[in-house]
Amino acid sequence: MSTHYAKPLARLVGEFEKLPGIGPKSAQRLAFHVLRIPEDEAHALAAAIVDVRTTIKYCRVCGNFTDQDTCFICTDPRRDQSLMCIVAEARDLIAMEKTNEFRGVYHVLQGVISPMEGVGPDRLRIAELQDRLSGGIVREVILATNPTVEGDTTAMYLARNIIKPLDPSIKITRIAHGMPAGGDLDYADQATLISALEWRRELT
Amino acid sequence: MSTHYAKPLARLVGEFEKLPGIGPKSAQRLAFHVLRIPEDEAHALAAAIVDVRTTIKYCRVCGNFTDQDTCFICTDPRRDQSLMCIVAEARDLIAMEKTNEFRGVYHVLQGVISPMEGVGPDRLRIAELQDRLSGGIVREVILATNPTVEGDTTAMYLARNIIKPLDPSIKITRIAHGMPAGGDLDYADQATLISALEWRRELT
Repeated sequence: MSTHYAKPLARLVGEFEKLPGIGPKSAQRLAFHVLRIPEDEAHALAAAIVDVRTTIKYCRVCGNFTDQDTCFICTDPRRDQSLMCIVAEARDLIAMEKTNEFRGVYHVLQGVISPMEGVGPDRLRIAELQDRLSGGIVREVILATNPTVEGDTTAMYLARNIIKPLDPSIKITRIAHGMPAGGDLDYADQATLISALEWRRELT
Repeated sequence: MSTHYAKPLARLVGEFEKLPGIGPKSAQRLAFHVLRIPEDEAHALAAAIVDVRTTIKYCRVCGNFTDQDTCFICTDPRRDQSLMCIVAEARDLIAMEKTNEFRGVYHVLQGVISPMEGVGPDRLRIAELQDRLSGGIVREVILATNPTVEGDTTAMYLARNIIKPLDPSIKITRIAHGMPAGGDLDYADQATLISALEWRRELT
């Protein structure tokens, strides 16, 4: 803790510094902000932090964050239960939802296979996935893990070792790899350009 | 509040978004981080926020943040009470302290004169400054407001209208304006270069 601050202030700066993407400078700015805002706003922030820990759990169906037993997507009767999008993390689900394009349901793996970090398939929500797929309702699975070595490996593993053996009639798709919208070929990395070539599609 | 999140999560994301320099993306990352860390760490963060509001106040002498009546700088017998550095905000005091170069005491104005934002001298801690200077102990005042129009105006106002009339024997200095360390003339803005010329010093 820095000796330049009064103790409670140093402690708050220290707590903010532990947060991801918050350096010492930002931590100080945040702490000074907390001192400046109305007291009830500071309490609202503290309460929200405690509250999220007491109320939020994993959806027992898809693994999304929820304050109910089952999340609002899984219980929404308008969602297409025959179309399942598999993502690594809840934040990927949020990103997908923000597009307002996907009307199916999700399955959150809560990780990807990563030999480097000692994460095997047993650490992911794969048993839950098998349970859901054996119900015979899902007709297409979209593998939406990241276009990285680990994301691609996980997608391939799920397709070949889990989904196909369980029910060969389920259609298995992978999100496209290619140039991001608004991207510039001149600034794109090699791997992206190679994907953009490999995944090219005939114009009709 | 976004409808993509469970309510307590949306509320926490919303609270984080209110903080300075935290956009929607960072707010989401912070909220997810709070869900991932051990529960006692989340509580420590919340407690530090509440705690800082209940314990931190302004030093009755210099205006710095403190959890005592008088801050640890003002009560430090090793500090030179005859040398006073005047800063706009407590964060400027911290920046100065981090240099480990200044061994005098401070006076925090808690703002600068800003006609644009309707801040006149009456809103600053100037009466308290006059009180301190009339004690006859301070022999030099370093005006360390920012090298901006408002900072320069405030410094000039304090020198001519407050300090000089009160005690003409007090030495009044202004922090140097010029090129920042490691800076590049080619990238410096005009105002900085003009200052660097104006404030030039003969090499001996």
